This record gives sequence, C-alpha cells and structure tokens, in this order.
Amino acid sequence: MKYSVRKLYKEYESMDQQKITLFGWVRSNRAQKEFGFINLNDGTFFETIQVVYDIQLDNFKDIQKYRVGSAIYIEGTVLLTPDRKQPFEIKATAVELVGDSEEDYPIQPKRHTREFLRENAHLRARTNLFSAVFRVRSILTHAIHTFFQERDFVHVAAPLITASDAEGAGETFKVTTLDLDNLPRTEQGDIDYRQDFFQKKTNLTVSGQLEAEAFALAFRDVYTFGPTFRAENSNTTTHASEFWMIEPEIAFADIHDDMDLAEDMVKFLIQYVLDKAPEEMAFFNKFVQKGLLEKLDKVVNGDFKRITHKEAIQVLLDSKQKFENTPSFSEDLATEHEKYLVQHFDGPVFIIDWPKDIKAFYMRLNDDNKTVAAMDLLVPGSGELIGGSQREERLEYLEKRMKEMNVPKEDLWWYLDLRKYGGCKHAGYGLGFDRMLMYITGVENIRDVIPFPRTPRNCEF
Amino acid sequence: MKYSVRKLYKEYESMDQQKITLFGWVRSNRAQKEFGFINLNDGTFFETIQVVYDIQLDNFKDIQKYRVGSAIYIEGTVLLTPDRKQPFEIKATAVELVGDSEEDYPIQPKRHTREFLRENAHLRARTNLFSAVFRVRSILTHAIHTFFQERDFVHVAAPLITASDAEGAGETFKVTTLDLDNLPRTEQGDIDYRQDFFQKKTNLTVSGQLEAEAFALAFRDVYTFGPTFRAENSNTTTHASEFWMIEPEIAFADIHDDMDLAEDMVKFLIQYVLDKAPEEMAFFNKFVQKGLLEKLDKVVNGDFKRITHKEAIQVLLDSKQKFENTPSFSEDLATEHEKYLVQHFDGPVFIIDWPKDIKAFYMRLNDDNKTVAAMDLLVPGSGELIGGSQREERLEYLEKRMKEMNVPKEDLWWYLDLRKYGGCKHAGYGLGFDRMLMYITGVENIRDVIPFPRTPRNCEF
Repeated sequence: MKYSVRKLYKEYESMDQQKITLFGWVRSNRAQKEFGFINLNDGTFFETIQVVYDIQLDNFKDIQKYRVGSAIYIEGTVLLTPDRKQPFEIKATAVELVGDSEEDYPIQPKRHTREFLRENAHLRARTNLFSAVFRVRSILTHAIHTFFQERDFVHVAAPLITASDAEGAGETFKVTTLDLDNLPRTEQGDIDYRQDFFQKKTNLTVSGQLEAEAFALAFRDVYTFGPTFRAENSNTTTHASEFWMIEPEIAFADIHDDMDLAEDMVKFLIQYVLDKAPEEMAFFNKFVQKGLLEKLDKVVNGDFKRITHKEAIQVLLDSKQKFENTPSFSEDLATEHEKYLVQHFDGPVFIIDWPKDIKAFYMRLNDDNKTVAAMDLLVPGSGELIGGSQREERLEYLEKRMKEMNVPKEDLWWYLDLRKYGGCKHAGYGLGFDRMLMYITGVENIRDVIPFPRTPRNCEF
Repeated sequence: MKYSVRKLYKEYESMDQQKITLFGWVRSNRAQKEFGFINLNDGTFFETIQVVYDIQLDNFKDIQKYRVGSAIYIEGTVLLTPDRKQPFEIKATAVELVGDSEEDYPIQPKRHTREFLRENAHLRARTNLFSAVFRVRSILTHAIHTFFQERDFVHVAAPLITASDAEGAGETFKVTTLDLDNLPRTEQGDIDYRQDFFQKKTNLTVSGQLEAEAFALAFRDVYTFGPTFRAENSNTTTHASEFWMIEPEIAFADIHDDMDLAEDMVKFLIQYVLDKAPEEMAFFNKFVQKGLLEKLDKVVNGDFKRITHKEAIQVLLDSKQKFENTPSFSEDLATEHEKYLVQHFDGPVFIIDWPKDIKAFYMRLNDDNKTVAAMDLLVPGSGELIGGSQREERLEYLEKRMKEMNVPKEDLWWYLDLRKYGGCKHAGYGLGFDRMLMYITGVENIRDVIPFPRTPRNCEF
C-alpha cells in the first residue's frame, strides 16, 4: 500500500528521522539559491506537507523549475520541527517529476473567483476550498448511510425513470429514445409513445417518497438516498436541476416520531462531520462563514422548538417587525418570516399542522379538517432544511383528497393498495442533501457543493 | 423508541416473563378453538415471531379473523421455549387491529411465481424472498461505502444528465424539456436545441468514470456509487435500463494496484454481508441457490488468479472442450469461455492485457502496441463481474487513440486537460451493483434484485 500524507499527519510524532516515499502534486515551489521548498498535497488530506530539497540533489536545477500542479515523486526523511508552525517537514533525498503541469495551468496559488473555478470544475477540487467541500460531501454521504444503517433502516433505491409525476412537485425532464427528427404518430396524429422505450411517456423522478412508503410498509423503517430532478427554470443560488435527496419513511409512527428522527439525524450528521473533518471545518469557519462552528454547535447541543403554523403566524403578527409579506394563517411562510422565527426562538424550529390547501395530497388530515400533519424544519442561517409529514393512511380520506387535487387514481393504484392491505400510521420527510452540505460548510451557492452541477442552461463536463 | 422484533431476537434470552409491546404485520394466523397462533413480522428482522393468543382475551373471536397482511398491535409476555424450534414466543395479553387487510390481498402464505410478484412489486418486499433480497441490497450498499470510506476514498457524485456520450458504452436515453408536439426549429429546419433546458442535446449518463478520473487527480483515491442508464433493447435476465454502478479510480496506481483493490473489495463485500445478514444468507443458500455459501466462502478465502488474455486463449485452445465460438487471440471471450476458465482455475480469475481493438479509447496502451492494460474479473457462477483498466495518461497516445476511434476531442477538452496538468498513472474499474447483489444472493433475474426495475417496455410503479 502506498503511503499517504493523511497517514503521515497521524503518525509523524513517532517517525522522526524515518525514511518515507510519497507521490503527490506541487501546490507551490519556492526555489532559492541553494535549496527550495515544495508544498506537496497528495489528495488524501486537507493540509500540505513541506518538502525541503537542496543543491546536493543531482537534479536540483530541474526541481527548482517544477511547476505548480505537477505530479512528483519524493523520497526523504521525516524531520520533526516542534518549534515551528508545521510540526514536521520532509528533507528530500530524491525528487522526481511524474507528470508535468503545462505553463498555462489555470489553478495558480492565488485567489480565483468561484465563477472561474466553476468553469474549471474538472480542476477545482485541487484548491483548498473545493478539496474541503468535496471531502466533506463524501463524509456527509457516509454519515447519512451510517445514521440510518446503525438504526437498522433499509435503504431503498427508488427508481429515477418514472411514468408518473404523481407528487406534482414540479416540472420534470422527459426521458425518451424516440427519434425526435422523425416522431412516430398514431392514426390520430398524436405522438405514438407506444413506440417509445417503455411504451409510454416517461420522465425523471422528483421524489422517491411514494416508493419508499411501499417499502416502509414492509420493512417498517426505510430511507432513500439518491438523485432527484427538477426542470424548473430558476436560476438561484439554492436550486439545481439535479440534486440528491434523503427520504426516510417510518411505519407505526406519527408526526412526532418523524420530528424526533429528523432532529436526531441533523445532530448526528453535523457531529459526524465535525469529528471526521476538523481541518476542513476549521477552514470553512475561518474563510467561508465566520461563526460557522458556533452556529453548528448550537444546533447540535440545543433542543429544536416545535410550534404549529398557527402559533408561528401569531408570533409573526405579534412582532414589531415590518414584513414585506403579511403573515397569514392560510398561507406559506416567506423567507423573511422563517428568518424572524429562527431568530426569535434562537435555534431550529419545527413548524407543524399546516393549512391543507398549500400542502401535498398525501399528507394526513388533522381532526380540525383544516390542517394536515405536516412539518417543516427551519434552521438559523438557512430557512427550511427539511419538509415532511405523517401520511394519510385512511383510504377514503386519501381518495377524496386525490380527487380534490386532480391526482389521477389510475397511476397510483399501487399507492392506494398500501392503504388496503395492512395500512398503518406512517410518516417521513425529505432532506435536500446539497442544501444540508451548504448548511454545514457555509458555502452559499449550490453550484459550489456539487462536483459537476446541472442548472438551467448549464450542463458542462 | 418503539421496540422491534430484531431487538427481541437479540435480547430474548434475558427477557423471560417480561412484558413487551409490538407493532407488526400478520404473516399467518392459525385459529383454533380456544387459542390461536399469529406469525408476526415487523419488517425489522427476517424471522417472524410466534404470538399465542387465547380465549381469555375479550376480542378473541375478532383476533381469530385477523387476516394475513393486517397491521396489528400486541401486548404480551415473552416466554422462553428452549425445547422447541423457535427459542421463544409471545403470550399475548392484548391484540388489536391497526390496519385491516382486504380479502383479496395478493400476498398469501403460499408459493407465488416471481412474475406475479414483479407485477406486485409494491407488496413483494413482504415475502420471505424479497424481504431477504432487499435487506441484503441495503446492507451491501452500506458495505460499499464502508469499504471505501475506511480506506479514505472520497465519494464523487457523478452527474447523471450529461451532454456527451463520450465513452460510447451504449445507447442512451435523451433528456429534454422541449415540447415534442411543437419542436422549435432553426432556420435550417433542424431541431433547435438551444431552446432546450440546457441549451444543448443531453442524455442520461452511461458511466461516471471520466468525471471520477478528474477527482482522482485531486484526491488520489475516489469512487462513484450511483445510478447509470442504458437504453439498449435487450431483454435478458442480467440487463436493466437503470442500474447502480460503483466506479473507483485511484491515482499513482497501475493495473496491478487496480486488481488488488478489486480483490480486496469483493472479499470485503461478501464477508460484510455474511456477517450482517446470516439469516437471509442461510435462506438464499437453502431456497435460492444450493451451494451459495460454499461458492462465496471460496471467493472470500481463495486467491484470485491473474492471467493475460493471450494465456487465457491458449488455455482454451489447449483444452479438449468443444466451444461454439472458437477462441481467438484478437477477440473477446464468450460466456462459454468464461465458464470454462473459472472452472479450470477453480475460482475467480483476472484476465489482463486485452487486444486494444476490442477495448475503450481511454485504456492504457501496453509496450507491445497491441494490447491495453485492461482487466476483467471472472467469477464462478456468474462470468464477468468487474471490468477495469489503467488509464492512458500520456496525452499524445490518448489523442491518437481518440482520433482512431472517432471520439470527439471538443467534448472532452477537460478530460485531456487532466493529462496536461499533473497527469500520472491511474486506474479504475466498474462494478455493476445489481449484478454483485445477484451474485451474493444467488437470485438469477436482475428484475428481482431492484425494488422497481426498469427494463425495455416496463416502467411500472
């Protein structure tokens, strides 16, 4: 097994004067007359290590010219340097060029704009910021699976190509293999989707929730974690056309169990990342969002408030605050309202029992006949992070609601079946993975937390 | 937190005479004159538990009629029964109906065909077979992340919507938001993709490898694990239109490091599932594939052979075997050849150094100028499980190969950049997740290891 910078940072204290070999990339090379310093990063660890080389090396003059971005091989000796900023360095006994970096290498050791780096998304993971973002993205991915698997939840791979847009959650992308230049037609002149790959119209999914419900009614506790798609033409910093969602679904559980799970999960995820990526989190705290660690610490160690939509609106109406949008008992919260509420309660807040008319058909009607057992989690500095609900398990209520909201019954025969055969109270929620990552890193644009983001008019790489 | 059957199976030994409450579904209900037995499954564990109820319960007559599939609530006492087949049972003090199961419930306690269960994919996870398959699917998912994360690999979420079909790995699905009934046209009369969502033609990805390479050249060791798509009209038991792939990519590594990684991974994954799902694996061994555990044990504990394509062909030619397809030094292996080889070597075999003309453009040319540093892993009982290669890191070789194979340079400018700026030897492979799951469970049809499979002419649920 190759040695790594990560390993060296773990083990250096017992390695004084030991020989090692390393591969990596040059982050900077300061050549002086009789010696020089290379900052080497091998991708395994956020920090670089300092490699010192001197004129005694045969190829000293070549090494001096090794450019930023080059891949190199080094042999050397570990030297502890307890009185300096970095705790050790490598005294090189050999430095060799593995792969040159041409002179026009875009990633130079200077400040680049985020826009420029987006245009160089294939190289941007080599910068401090994006190396931190994408390692934390990976760690958060594992944190999610670990949280649910430790609790014996079953992961469900929900299908991505689907024939129904049952949730009505937004515009969808069409998926087809028809020859668009020569579309087959029925006798009536319509496009003949029977000749399409799936013999019907298909699109990319907006949610795996309904399929997750089917599995929750077999396994009790399940979760999806996969890509979902929205074809909305909204060019904001928080919308991507392709993004990952986590959708847990729990049976024999109500909206309160749902909130318990969400609260536990959010705390677990943040703590997991803090534990596994301290260097990256310190970097974000210093250079990306001042106060980030304090913000996260408060979430991990605080209790999440739980209030109804009605109570929330009352708080807003009672406040001295002037809002652009007047708070209303029958309407959704505006961003300014969310901000006020998390400030007012000084921490995360669940809002439950929403007016049924602004919520989806599958949410469970409360006994007041006006609200549904829905919940949104608002967090400081980001607004809504999670949306969920108890699901309508009563067949007659569900069918009535679908009719009122024009959700076609034929498409969802199987979803209705779940209420006919051993239905029970169950609940779930959706967490946008990329938004959670933005929250944890403090990075403000969703384009900067997705390796190769897809947004309206943008599908590069 | 609710109690669970899984927990009970772990803790029952110390629970004699203790009271518990449980929710779950009726798998069977044998009502006798003065008492009855319900087999209860709550989804958290493969095994059911036996609930004994008797005439002293107020609603005894109702309980007797609780149908298969119903959701129920029970209160009762744990009784150890060490002299019987099941080690404990629950003596019920209360049994209540939570959700009825209508009389026409499709999943009755009898043998159903797999075809019938595919048509009821929303309910089939309630059977023994599919409860085992989909729990193991979930465990295998976590095994993959665990293997790579423990080794500090960075997970890369490769994009699914893409503008290039650069790998040429197969037919793709088109993705569009254009109104197919009213396609915009350019002045020349072509479809005007500038008006499409991404302002260009896009499709669903067939592989995340090229993007993974970009990240490997920043993080050294990375992996993708996500959905990929093939629009091929092949109705076989091993092809799905939507399936999950694992694609690790390692920098400063050659084809031998690549094989080491693949071998370690395969062994780890199998062992992980054996450890975490012993009940399910015993079930597969007994009812799905006789000899399954023996087959897997051999893989975990054996050494994987490594031979060249040339050597493999020679073995085939030297054999007494009559093949339908004559083995050829310039051609791919047929399924019958793969079968012979794994039998001949009595275990998994890596075949390396393949004729370049039958392999992809990005594979590294060997010094013989005829073969590339590609590797396929063949395993007993399944044929090819993994395909990988060392990548061509030399810009001039790569460009030459792309030209020969008509791979457009413009689309892949960023991929070529990876060779200009700190390129180094690197390698990777692809593992089809669903096929690995088939291999581990012994299930022979890919439609039976995917929750809601998508295949030609089939996109239900």
